[in-house]
Amino acid sequence: MLPLTSGSFRRAVLLRIRSARLLSGHRGASGGPRCRWDPPAGAEELRGELDRFGGVSVRLARRGALDRLDAASFQRRLQGAVFDENTGKILVVQDRNKLKNMWKFPGGLSEPGEDIGDTAVREVFEETGIRSEFRSLLSLRQQHTNPGAFGKSDMYIICRLKPHSFTIDFCQHECLRCEWMDLSDLAKTENTTPITSRVARLLLYGYREGFDKIDFTMEELPAVYTGLFYKLYHKELPANYRTMTGMD
Amino acid sequence: MLPLTSGSFRRAVLLRIRSARLLSGHRGASGGPRCRWDPPAGAEELRGELDRFGGVSVRLARRGALDRLDAASFQRRLQGAVFDENTGKILVVQDRNKLKNMWKFPGGLSEPGEDIGDTAVREVFEETGIRSEFRSLLSLRQQHTNPGAFGKSDMYIICRLKPHSFTIDFCQHECLRCEWMDLSDLAKTENTTPITSRVARLLLYGYREGFDKIDFTMEELPAVYTGLFYKLYHKELPANYRTMTGMD
Repeated sequence: MLPLTSGSFRRAVLLRIRSARLLSGHRGASGGPRCRWDPPAGAEELRGELDRFGGVSVRLARRGALDRLDAASFQRRLQGAVFDENTGKILVVQDRNKLKNMWKFPGGLSEPGEDIGDTAVREVFEETGIRSEFRSLLSLRQQHTNPGAFGKSDMYIICRLKPHSFTIDFCQHECLRCEWMDLSDLAKTENTTPITSRVARLLLYGYREGFDKIDFTMEELPAVYTGLFYKLYHKELPANYRTMTGMD
Repeated sequence: MLPLTSGSFRRAVLLRIRSARLLSGHRGASGGPRCRWDPPAGAEELRGELDRFGGVSVRLARRGALDRLDAASFQRRLQGAVFDENTGKILVVQDRNKLKNMWKFPGGLSEPGEDIGDTAVREVFEETGIRSEFRSLLSLRQQHTNPGAFGKSDMYIICRLKPHSFTIDFCQHECLRCEWMDLSDLAKTENTTPITSRVARLLLYGYREGFDKIDFTMEELPAVYTGLFYKLYHKELPANYRTMTGMD
């Protein structure tokens, strides 16, 4: 088993070096240091590691193990619908590598321990150069990429963001185009994904009839016993239900 | 490195056997076969595995690797707020091992590839014996158990469920008590967690003024290119915004 382990260790280390080169080669090549290229999912995990007994462990069956873990848990992706209420325009991008000519909201994967709104704001900035602020959670999508018992689950959350800057400086590794588009145009165009179209129409409804109709707002509440806080998202609660005063 | 690997392999296999025994010892001991005891997170992952080169791989640095993966992804927990509109009563439980005397909604972890609503319905049945049907997504909670760069994220989703059966047969491993409680009592009691109290008040608002005020409803939409479908949750969209007919 020793030669096999050593061989696999070399392979793992080589793959890690290649991943690292690929990563550094793309990082910051355009769009400034914030413009980041993400390696394929799991590439970072195939490596030799020091264990607590002082040895080196390499997971040969990495792919299967990752699939199981991904299935038990799941990835959290965020999209930011950056809407400018003053102009009625929404920030949209076209992917460089997939879904060409399809307008969509900028976004990406959460970092470890990162809050929903923080991911959306960070990813929008990295991809488009636009600074923004979290306003609400608009929609949640669940998809099983591989249907069946060990199908990998994927969770996409779309947030409403308010822009604080307006000059686009988009990441050319990730995006082919980036624009401020009339929200009503996005709601009608065919050059978009079904989910983008649906959320554009949802936003239009909120823009015309009040965002309270569509928003899950966020509040921080204390956790029981731990002394920590958590963030809770739901429809805004009227004041009398919030305090329960004067209610039978 | 060989003796270390072999020793660790023995340890890993032993731990796996212990985990399996623990699991089989608790499963189904009361509350019927649906009443299940979950092993600690990650216990299933510490084991030797055949890899594609014909060797056996054991991840000694399992704990660290799991933490990283858990941080990059996250666990999905579901709670089911089973509310009976005919009686105004809500299904609540008290945990056997933690948060004693605190009423909360039944729930638990998603299985691989399982939809949000399906998890809530299954966990409610396993924990309380009550059969129910998914109606809407009410709230989403994000908490970082260990704050910091590698803090593990946790996502709790609370669904509104409609009961189809009413005779409680609760899992005595998980619950100390299980009751149908007046929703207005749950909204006022101090013997509950802040999140349960908040969602009880949200439900009361929906019960009295229309569930359309609080629900994220679900719809299935086609994914682009893959030919698969996904489930999308957001506030109900009025018909004219849905079709965009007659809108400028």
